[in-house]
Amino acid sequence: MKDFILTLDDIGNKSVQNIETLFAQANGTLGVRASLPIRTGESTPGTFLNAFYESHDIVYGENAYGYAKQHQTMVNLFDLRSIELMIDGKSEFLLSDQSVVLDMEKGLLFESYIYETGDGKKFEYLLESFASHSERSVYAQKIQIKALNFSGVVKLVKKGRPVSVKKGEAFDPRIKNSSTELIQEGNKYTTQNSRLSIYVKFDSLSEERRLNEGESISFTQLYHISRENHFSSLSYDELKNKQVEIFANFWKSSDIEIEGNTRLQKGIRFNMYHLFNSAGRDGASNFSAKGLTGEGYEGHYFWDTEMYLLPFFIYTQPEIAKSLLSYRVSILPKAQARAKELGFQGALFAWRTINGEETSAYYPAGTAQVHINADIAYGFELFEKVTGDTDFIEENSTLIFETARFWLDYGFYSKRGFEIHEVTGPDEYTALVNNNYYTNKMAQNNLFYAARLANRLKSNEDEAKYWFNAAENMYFGFDQELQIIQQDDSFLTKEPWDFVNTPKEKYPLLLHYHPMKIYKHQVLKQADTILAHMLFDESQEQVNRDFAFYEPLTTHDSSLSRTVYGVVASKLGRSELAYRFFKEAAIMDLEDSQGNASHGIHAANMGGSWLGLIYGFAGLSYENGEIKTNNNLPKEIKSMKFTITIQGEKKHIIIE
Amino acid sequence: MKDFILTLDDIGNKSVQNIETLFAQANGTLGVRASLPIRTGESTPGTFLNAFYESHDIVYGENAYGYAKQHQTMVNLFDLRSIELMIDGKSEFLLSDQSVVLDMEKGLLFESYIYETGDGKKFEYLLESFASHSERSVYAQKIQIKALNFSGVVKLVKKGRPVSVKKGEAFDPRIKNSSTELIQEGNKYTTQNSRLSIYVKFDSLSEERRLNEGESISFTQLYHISRENHFSSLSYDELKNKQVEIFANFWKSSDIEIEGNTRLQKGIRFNMYHLFNSAGRDGASNFSAKGLTGEGYEGHYFWDTEMYLLPFFIYTQPEIAKSLLSYRVSILPKAQARAKELGFQGALFAWRTINGEETSAYYPAGTAQVHINADIAYGFELFEKVTGDTDFIEENSTLIFETARFWLDYGFYSKRGFEIHEVTGPDEYTALVNNNYYTNKMAQNNLFYAARLANRLKSNEDEAKYWFNAAENMYFGFDQELQIIQQDDSFLTKEPWDFVNTPKEKYPLLLHYHPMKIYKHQVLKQADTILAHMLFDESQEQVNRDFAFYEPLTTHDSSLSRTVYGVVASKLGRSELAYRFFKEAAIMDLEDSQGNASHGIHAANMGGSWLGLIYGFAGLSYENGEIKTNNNLPKEIKSMKFTITIQGEKKHIIIE
Repeated sequence: MKDFILTLDDIGNKSVQNIETLFAQANGTLGVRASLPIRTGESTPGTFLNAFYESHDIVYGENAYGYAKQHQTMVNLFDLRSIELMIDGKSEFLLSDQSVVLDMEKGLLFESYIYETGDGKKFEYLLESFASHSERSVYAQKIQIKALNFSGVVKLVKKGRPVSVKKGEAFDPRIKNSSTELIQEGNKYTTQNSRLSIYVKFDSLSEERRLNEGESISFTQLYHISRENHFSSLSYDELKNKQVEIFANFWKSSDIEIEGNTRLQKGIRFNMYHLFNSAGRDGASNFSAKGLTGEGYEGHYFWDTEMYLLPFFIYTQPEIAKSLLSYRVSILPKAQARAKELGFQGALFAWRTINGEETSAYYPAGTAQVHINADIAYGFELFEKVTGDTDFIEENSTLIFETARFWLDYGFYSKRGFEIHEVTGPDEYTALVNNNYYTNKMAQNNLFYAARLANRLKSNEDEAKYWFNAAENMYFGFDQELQIIQQDDSFLTKEPWDFVNTPKEKYPLLLHYHPMKIYKHQVLKQADTILAHMLFDESQEQVNRDFAFYEPLTTHDSSLSRTVYGVVASKLGRSELAYRFFKEAAIMDLEDSQGNASHGIHAANMGGSWLGLIYGFAGLSYENGEIKTNNNLPKEIKSMKFTITIQGEKKHIIIE
Repeated sequence: MKDFILTLDDIGNKSVQNIETLFAQANGTLGVRASLPIRTGESTPGTFLNAFYESHDIVYGENAYGYAKQHQTMVNLFDLRSIELMIDGKSEFLLSDQSVVLDMEKGLLFESYIYETGDGKKFEYLLESFASHSERSVYAQKIQIKALNFSGVVKLVKKGRPVSVKKGEAFDPRIKNSSTELIQEGNKYTTQNSRLSIYVKFDSLSEERRLNEGESISFTQLYHISRENHFSSLSYDELKNKQVEIFANFWKSSDIEIEGNTRLQKGIRFNMYHLFNSAGRDGASNFSAKGLTGEGYEGHYFWDTEMYLLPFFIYTQPEIAKSLLSYRVSILPKAQARAKELGFQGALFAWRTINGEETSAYYPAGTAQVHINADIAYGFELFEKVTGDTDFIEENSTLIFETARFWLDYGFYSKRGFEIHEVTGPDEYTALVNNNYYTNKMAQNNLFYAARLANRLKSNEDEAKYWFNAAENMYFGFDQELQIIQQDDSFLTKEPWDFVNTPKEKYPLLLHYHPMKIYKHQVLKQADTILAHMLFDESQEQVNRDFAFYEPLTTHDSSLSRTVYGVVASKLGRSELAYRFFKEAAIMDLEDSQGNASHGIHAANMGGSWLGLIYGFAGLSYENGEIKTNNNLPKEIKSMKFTITIQGEKKHIIIE
């Protein structure tokens, strides 16, 4: 099926680094960028192991109590794709043709490169490869080198090259190294500060052979990278067969077919393909903001997981959703310690982290986004509702209770109700505000959920009364004159941003204006109040007014913004507008419209494009055992077919 | 006069480092800590040249547009006080007696140290020293070493020892060194990054001599440290005579005599002595937060100068006041560049700086304290009013206009009036607030002053209308229910701080709580609204209500707090309370009640103690050519005599 095939013709920016990201291969554990077999200056090869990071002390210009202490950086481990070649003594080649074909249906990548020596000898480098989904420590390659127009001696070395390794040096704990160099001992590689180890087993090839014109050298290679020193013994073909089978099953339970725009059809499949590839599977890793496709955001996990990605997994791959939530359970002790350090009860999850410790070095747009607590609780709640897996929730009820305890302590009662001050909402162009609507709404939901759960489990019922009461009395600001919901206590008193005199090249604003200038204006980086409207019921009139007020103030400088506005536009019946937002989201990375896909995919936006189709165009909701849909299809899309899994049963839905 | 003599008996904390600070000698250009002649582990010798700094890049955990780029650090240059001694081959000595006598009347320090070798040989080290106020590049010492109970060979070396010097190494601009090592070439020393140079001429002594019991070695030494390579040729005695004369004149125009408490009398003189010693005199330097007595706050200049120190200088040493204001004129181009960088018109002075560039690495409690602009303008206005030196103001009117332009652009009109958002007021336990009362009040004053000046000079009259209008329409928040002035838009909506459950060891709060916890509570580090009440007329009832509300919420964790509450308490006729605040301020460093006098004097508090006496107890004000006083003397103080200079004329004032 053509719509499962992605080639270079499908992508807007064909730079080396962009190709590396878009065609990257991953299996939730291991990720490999699709770098060139013969490296050039622009080439940035990358091999990542989910949750494998190095730590370094954060240096502050001015430090203060309770600041995050250490950076965590996902380590770029090996270059598994490059080859050293010599043709009749020449080692300089010109790339004269390149074809890259991603078969998303099978999870296989096919590449062909035609190289030429200075004296006109041409050869083809053919590569079939995949990051194995059956054995997640394996990256597999099948290579063929063919002499196209010459006979001569081909000398080749193909091995996994460490990106940055200190050989044989003893570990000296006194030296805090800020690099991500690894210590090698035999087949074991260890980070210097975080003391994490991996073991490798690499097929290496070193050969010198005479080829006649038209002849080839062929070989397969398996690269094993594992946390443990034992390795799969499956062959290339066995792994490949399993790969095809796994992807067939994936699409069976997850595919969305849309009729009317083949580009968007391809875009949404591309997005789901990457979501499936980068999600952690082991309960000890999660979903990095850039997946396993690049080093952007240092491989950190954010609220993106719960609010943008999890719905896709909950509705189509509930086992993966469960792994992602299990990761949060695994870092609960760190969240409890963090709340304590900041002087609050319960647990406060880190805004950005790998190992569970806060690693945001700018707390106003980091730690202050305490809504992450409620986002995580929301993820558990949605998981329970859709999958019906109450056992999992009951086993992990402590997480829900601890997040609720945090809210009860962080907020306070005033004559206006239960207020929550000094937080940063999703919109990072305002910071440290009081009563951010999204935060209060989510905290309310968290408190209600915890109270209901406590009563159901007959545990912590005394506390549950307080949680319920705080939720019941949650304060929400409303502007009587404009009849709109206040984003926070001060937002409507701010000076309007001068959009007319802001030239295009000054976006994103955060790169061109000081936070003091941005924060004091009515300008949004991304959906905030409108995100709450995507999640919670609200009257159409209210949503309409809020949308009309906030959308024109939104720069969409965050890639998390458009899909939210799109879903809400669908809900409002503004299908033309919804389609525009959806289109931009669905092909954001294919077009490189954010301009930085080279750093890695925009995973949250990919999840958001799924929301645009399912929550938006199909109007899906599931409440009280009932699946509801709504035909919000824009005129450009004639029909939509998709599969979801509810309470363990697959449902096939068609919207026409 | 006994009250001009300070000895070790007068100070509360006799640690080596505390003595070094309190008995430090300085002349506005050069500062020398009173370190031990024979160094011990605790000894931290220090020689500082005002405005002589090294710069280093600021490293941020997470950087953003417009952040301050470089640290500036006052360099600790030389150890001018230590001596290398050998008595009959022994170089280890026990300090068995020490006497330190500061004659503040003459600006001379007398020290005596009795040292003893392991085998009982005692000698006395007698030192008379001063930082010359006639030749500001000179530190002068007269030394006598006396064999008390033995005859033997004394070997001594006495020279100025560089604290941190790289000898002979070429300057490599690629290396950004974070130390403050100097590059030495002959008698020239240069900082590595900021490329500032000094030249030195040191009298050195190296001698070996046999002393009989009771005999002495005596010598004098002059240390010259200068920005230029030529040096004064005055002798020790000539310099000493001038020193005594200069101090006599200083006290003649500045002394305050209080009857009733000799400790406070000494305290206030001690404070004025240090103020006189650490104020920059050359128009290119200012007054560091810790004076020239220690490395605290890296030698930076803050708003402390204008709001806490300048009144003392304006009323008693107007030439020094003029130098300090000239420094602000000298950095105006940097302030203009900073405003532009942040996207605003006019000039924005750096919150903390030496060379004029912003060096605050935490903008919410740094750059966001934009009130510094109005503080500086206020200093110019007070200077003009009291000295009558309109020429100086008219020459430098650009500074007043540029600060006004900043306010007009930073603020905006709403239906409530002219508002100023996203600022931090003096109280650093709230940050990034809207309509901070102190800031708006000061900005209003700045705008009015600029408008009046423009009209008087018949220049920028068109703009002056806008300045006047913004000032006229300045918004001030008022709480109808409590009938108090709001510190800012959100302060009264915050949760009260739980003072009852905050143990003493948790103060200062900033060392024990995260900013998010502090900022979201009603708790003050220092006077804020009440500081505005110290400066501007307001009804007694209003001040009373505001005082009653804000004072109990104030931790006084800042040393700038108590004096302000003290002055306002005086104004309210609450002389007992005023006396308590004054007492704490007057002897803060003598008692080491902040616990960190070892890092340097609390200069702003010293200036504040003068305000407590003159603005507070004497109720001094000068408006429309009229000196007004008010007898607010507390019962503990029977009378107060002081001298001020108004419009060039000395006025002797007695309050009884």
